[in-house]
Amino acid sequence: MRAVDIIIKKRDRKELTSQEIDFFVHGFTNGDIPDYQASAFAMAVLLNGMTPFETADLTLAMARSGQVLDLSKVVDIAVDKHSSGGVGDKTSISVMPMVAACGLPVGKMSGRGLGFSGGTLDKLESIPGYRVDLTTDEFKKQLKEKGIVLTGQSLDLAPADGKMYALRDVTGTVPSMPLIASSIMCKKIAGGAQAIVLDVKVGLGAFMETLDQGRELAELMVDIGRLAGRKTVALLSDMNQPLGSAVGNALEMIEAIELLRGRGPKDYYEHCLHVAAHVLALGQRAKDLEEGRTMAEKSITDGSALETFRTLVKAQGGDAAYVDDMSKFARAKYVEVVNSPRSGFISQVHARIVGEASVALGAGRAKKGDPIDHAVGFLIHKKVGDKVEAGEPLFEIHANDQAKLTEARQAVLSAHAFSDEFVSSLPLFYE
Amino acid sequence: MRAVDIIIKKRDRKELTSQEIDFFVHGFTNGDIPDYQASAFAMAVLLNGMTPFETADLTLAMARSGQVLDLSKVVDIAVDKHSSGGVGDKTSISVMPMVAACGLPVGKMSGRGLGFSGGTLDKLESIPGYRVDLTTDEFKKQLKEKGIVLTGQSLDLAPADGKMYALRDVTGTVPSMPLIASSIMCKKIAGGAQAIVLDVKVGLGAFMETLDQGRELAELMVDIGRLAGRKTVALLSDMNQPLGSAVGNALEMIEAIELLRGRGPKDYYEHCLHVAAHVLALGQRAKDLEEGRTMAEKSITDGSALETFRTLVKAQGGDAAYVDDMSKFARAKYVEVVNSPRSGFISQVHARIVGEASVALGAGRAKKGDPIDHAVGFLIHKKVGDKVEAGEPLFEIHANDQAKLTEARQAVLSAHAFSDEFVSSLPLFYE
Repeated sequence: MRAVDIIIKKRDRKELTSQEIDFFVHGFTNGDIPDYQASAFAMAVLLNGMTPFETADLTLAMARSGQVLDLSKVVDIAVDKHSSGGVGDKTSISVMPMVAACGLPVGKMSGRGLGFSGGTLDKLESIPGYRVDLTTDEFKKQLKEKGIVLTGQSLDLAPADGKMYALRDVTGTVPSMPLIASSIMCKKIAGGAQAIVLDVKVGLGAFMETLDQGRELAELMVDIGRLAGRKTVALLSDMNQPLGSAVGNALEMIEAIELLRGRGPKDYYEHCLHVAAHVLALGQRAKDLEEGRTMAEKSITDGSALETFRTLVKAQGGDAAYVDDMSKFARAKYVEVVNSPRSGFISQVHARIVGEASVALGAGRAKKGDPIDHAVGFLIHKKVGDKVEAGEPLFEIHANDQAKLTEARQAVLSAHAFSDEFVSSLPLFYE
Repeated sequence: MRAVDIIIKKRDRKELTSQEIDFFVHGFTNGDIPDYQASAFAMAVLLNGMTPFETADLTLAMARSGQVLDLSKVVDIAVDKHSSGGVGDKTSISVMPMVAACGLPVGKMSGRGLGFSGGTLDKLESIPGYRVDLTTDEFKKQLKEKGIVLTGQSLDLAPADGKMYALRDVTGTVPSMPLIASSIMCKKIAGGAQAIVLDVKVGLGAFMETLDQGRELAELMVDIGRLAGRKTVALLSDMNQPLGSAVGNALEMIEAIELLRGRGPKDYYEHCLHVAAHVLALGQRAKDLEEGRTMAEKSITDGSALETFRTLVKAQGGDAAYVDDMSKFARAKYVEVVNSPRSGFISQVHARIVGEASVALGAGRAKKGDPIDHAVGFLIHKKVGDKVEAGEPLFEIHANDQAKLTEARQAVLSAHAFSDEFVSSLPLFYE
């Protein structure tokens, strides 16, 4: 078998066999197949596509390119939840303790923020001491003993994916459905997931801007899951405006903990209940979504979700005092409330603009490895469909630099659009 | 400007500017743009195409990636002739002396054979001492003084093309019209050609198998020539069966010299007259094709073409005795005449099969740098449309190895097809 023949086959729109895909991924991982062949292959895939069978084969080959976690002796069913990323998306931080409090053990490996989209690990690190670098053995031990883990991705998982992603980034081969879907799913499978709830974000602040794109990605990932023998469901949720109110690491942590106390923005609360219900149902802890929702709600009202979160923070070396006294979180030097320049109905809070403004304040990173500022960000007070009076608080800026604050004010004001007519609120989920 | 943005633009089927193409070719030549970006770009070009404007820009950028020969002080008009390659194609060896004998100076840089297709340099080297490695200064001096040069391509010409071709070969990006056309034309332009006669071969023994492909390539190269300010004409000639009778280096040299003596196969003679007429007309030495043809014919009957060839061989260090005594050429140990297994009309002499059999005998190379055997090859006695009787000589094998001879007999017999019905001969040229 020769790499060039596999490239030619895909170039000529023929379907690749499992053996061919395995050969290519294996050779690329160990360096036998050079980058220049892999990038030509990626471009051929981007332009000619892949069938769901090929995409599932690619996913499994990438998953097997490194260590594959076996959690079958640790938990009855290994459940994972994945969000495709957005602005103000702190869902995992609230949902994982809710689900674990309901008796379904959950271990999750998350990523860092890149570009306008935030990352769970960065948010968790707002709590001093919290470790996101658990070893595989620590992961398994904590999952068995505490029933909850929230850490970073181990370096050993799916190395082909990391190598391929770096190459795609510089060869114009990122926006390919089969490559995006396999990249997400291979890490879930390598992480040992037997059941996967996918939260695919759609809108101005998501990588999938249209509902059609989001639906295509969601269907493809569910196909991959089915072909790979994993129970998979996908939700399509709105990311035209930020989720909840807080955008920025410590601000989002506070909002996620507030939710566990039964407080905080209604849209975020509803979103978490819906996701938690799906995880509980797929993990066979609830017999259906309705029961899952009731259980999740109870975990908040009876305080068990908050208690589970406290357990998580302690287990991973974090200062649990932050969970009970949120004034301990890093606070920005300058906090400015920006009032609405006019009356009317909010017709847009452009999620990507808010996300990019938050990166500019220091909450995110322009490139891998950049340092971040946990304290800075925004609180968005009015969402699409809300009525607002001129002079009423519209949003709040948390900044550590006056010049950046001025820029952020301008940017986030421009993210807002107003209408004289009534505007419906945005749905939380589609379909 | 960033390489990745240029790749993305081509991936998204947008037209690139001259500046973008220059930037990419320049960066690739000097190593700033790595192979993995160039191969992704080549795949995007192969699958999405290029306009004639982009292709002309690419051609000029590759031509300018190294030294560009200026022949304006050497000759009035620098004429070049290029064949896209085939089996038994020794046209340059006969046509160049004919044209030079008519008073039109011609300097040509040729290539070596690769795959089933022979190369002019390998054929010339059948004459001991003949140098194909003239320097640029030697090239200019000989062109001015002798009016004829036939040598190899200087390493300095269009280095981007050599680098790109090596990459295309291993990334499945060879069969792209814009990449093939620009690769041919950039070397002609870098070689200083102001007028170019292109002989595009079409058929079973050519890289362009169908007339449609050949026409597309021909039209594209004429477009490039026009956009680059070069007078360009393209001929479409048949390569379903070998050209002439001889296939193999020394055998073809002998046939080419025989032609200059007014002897040899009629199809090859007609082919050479037609090409020479076009070169003379385009080089403004003849007022039209008819006059060009008459001049070319006279150069043979009056012996001036043969004399010019003798001058060429001497000028480049070759043993001119070979021109007058062809028994001096290396001769194979075994010569076998294969008779026709049946009576009928010849309906096919599959050029690619004959070419591959000739490589197997040792006349060509499977990969760059392999040594070759000048003596071996075939003489094809019957062409498509010829009537043959059972037992009449069909072809002749020249081999230096008995086992290879046996294989070659089998292969070339299988290249022949017969018909009981009358079969028309193949046209020499299309359109």
